[in-house]
Amino acid sequence: MISNKTEIRITYADTDKMGYCYYGNYPRFYEIGRTELMRKLGLSYKELEESGIMMPVLSLNIKYIKPAFYDDIIVVETFIKEIPTSRIVFEYEVRNQYSDLINKGETVLAFVDDKSRKVVRVPDILFDKISKHL
Amino acid sequence: MISNKTEIRITYADTDKMGYCYYGNYPRFYEIGRTELMRKLGLSYKELEESGIMMPVLSLNIKYIKPAFYDDIIVVETFIKEIPTSRIVFEYEVRNQYSDLINKGETVLAFVDDKSRKVVRVPDILFDKISKHL
Amino acid sequence: MISNKTEIRITYADTDKMGYCYYGNYPRFYEIGRTELMRKLGLSYKELEESGIMMPVLSLNIKYIKPAFYDDIIVVETFIKEIPTSRIVFEYEVRNQYSDLINKGETVLAFVDDKSRKVVRVPDILFDKISKHL
Amino acid sequence: MISNKTEIRITYADTDKMGYCYYGNYPRFYEIGRTELMRKLGLSYKELEESGIMMPVLSLNIKYIKPAFYDDIIVVETFIKEIPTSRIVFEYEVRNQYSDLINKGETVLAFVDDKSRKVVRVPDILFDKISKHL
Repeated sequence: MISNKTEIRITYADTDKMGYCYYGNYPRFYEIGRTELMRKLGLSYKELEESGIMMPVLSLNIKYIKPAFYDDIIVVETFIKEIPTSRIVFEYEVRNQYSDLINKGETVLAFVDDKSRKVVRVPDILFDKISKHL
Repeated sequence: MISNKTEIRITYADTDKMGYCYYGNYPRFYEIGRTELMRKLGLSYKELEESGIMMPVLSLNIKYIKPAFYDDIIVVETFIKEIPTSRIVFEYEVRNQYSDLINKGETVLAFVDDKSRKVVRVPDILFDKISKHL
Repeated sequence: MISNKTEIRITYADTDKMGYCYYGNYPRFYEIGRTELMRKLGLSYKELEESGIMMPVLSLNIKYIKPAFYDDIIVVETFIKEIPTSRIVFEYEVRNQYSDLINKGETVLAFVDDKSRKVVRVPDILFDKISKHL
Repeated sequence: MISNKTEIRITYADTDKMGYCYYGNYPRFYEIGRTELMRKLGLSYKELEESGIMMPVLSLNIKYIKPAFYDDIIVVETFIKEIPTSRIVFEYEVRNQYSDLINKGETVLAFVDDKSRKVVRVPDILFDKISKHL
């Protein structure tokens, strides 16, 4: 299993009138989680894009357990548990500074050729970096 | 079945460097969809909150099918298909101006007492408005 | 003077824990205002971009007068008061549903060639549409 | 002069179809800058709010000089140069990882009593922390 933890501070912009971090901010936090996981693996998403591969999101699931509040520091733990094919699954667990589970979720992303906008198989360079850990 | 359609114009702010509407904007568009559906039912979410009931989101699922692009007018169709209990399920289908299905999703929301922050049953006033259509 | 009014409904996503529409949302609302003003003039920003001209923002000023609240319908009135050169100035007045002035502001945008990323003069097609009203 | 530097990574969510960090994201980055400056002074904005004082924004000015791009690490340097009265002025300079100036700006914020929603003078506890450096 591959994983990485990233800290994010909840800003005023993130809050809503309930005083909670708005539910629609977490997809952005999940993006930060998977980006930092890829960077740790040694292939940044930016480099992958520059090599001509984009990774659009195919599905998103979030189960909200507790709210996060203004100025909380949340920790997004991101996991890759399976070898990617033409898709890659990232799982997420978000905890607050008291280690309470805030939410958990999953995104599935495709590999798409920048020019043709067609789905392709996982690039070898990414496959190699992941498969040696799984 | 209860449903409502709401049009939303994709702004520059909504786009990302892929040229697509960023995947993380759709929870916000779903919020607009369910808010307008409630308004059409005759009980705005604002009035419900003023009566002391909040509706935090318990889960979110989105299946992304096609991208939306800058300046597209998307139509968020929102559905209530089941009588709510202590939870209410909203389903969503998002189409572009060519009637292509962009994505579909679901949110489950709780009813929570503003003061105690405890889960409560669906308020009678909302139950009545929904049950007469289902 | 050229002007246009656009209505925007304040969403839950827009609010912050103070219960106000977050101050950082107004640049997005100003974008909607100037986009709809250009559409009314007969040259959408999308068409302008497709012709190879981008309009990055050079400066932004906002004077906040009153807060907007959840579910308010604000009206963004956008003005062009001067013939553009290599820059175009949009002014904005935002009012709520009670006609209270919420804020006023100004953005200055450049015309930039998509390929060279150099500043250019206002495209003739836009100049013609504006100058006949000023 | 009081100042603090905060690093922010530009996410995919922050980008627009021009490939730039959207102009409307900087007010959020400025918020992060001033929040971290206050934390460094020893009085977090959260604590100030808990003591009954809110700080709504009265005005915002930004001069955009260069774009920031996806995955850039920008540094928001935030300054307090004047003793606050019933208002406090924060200035900002944003640079990218090559030390290029991206934009500079200013926000003026009021001190408002949470209950009465009236403007008040700078709280003594904040005045003391600022005045000993200026």
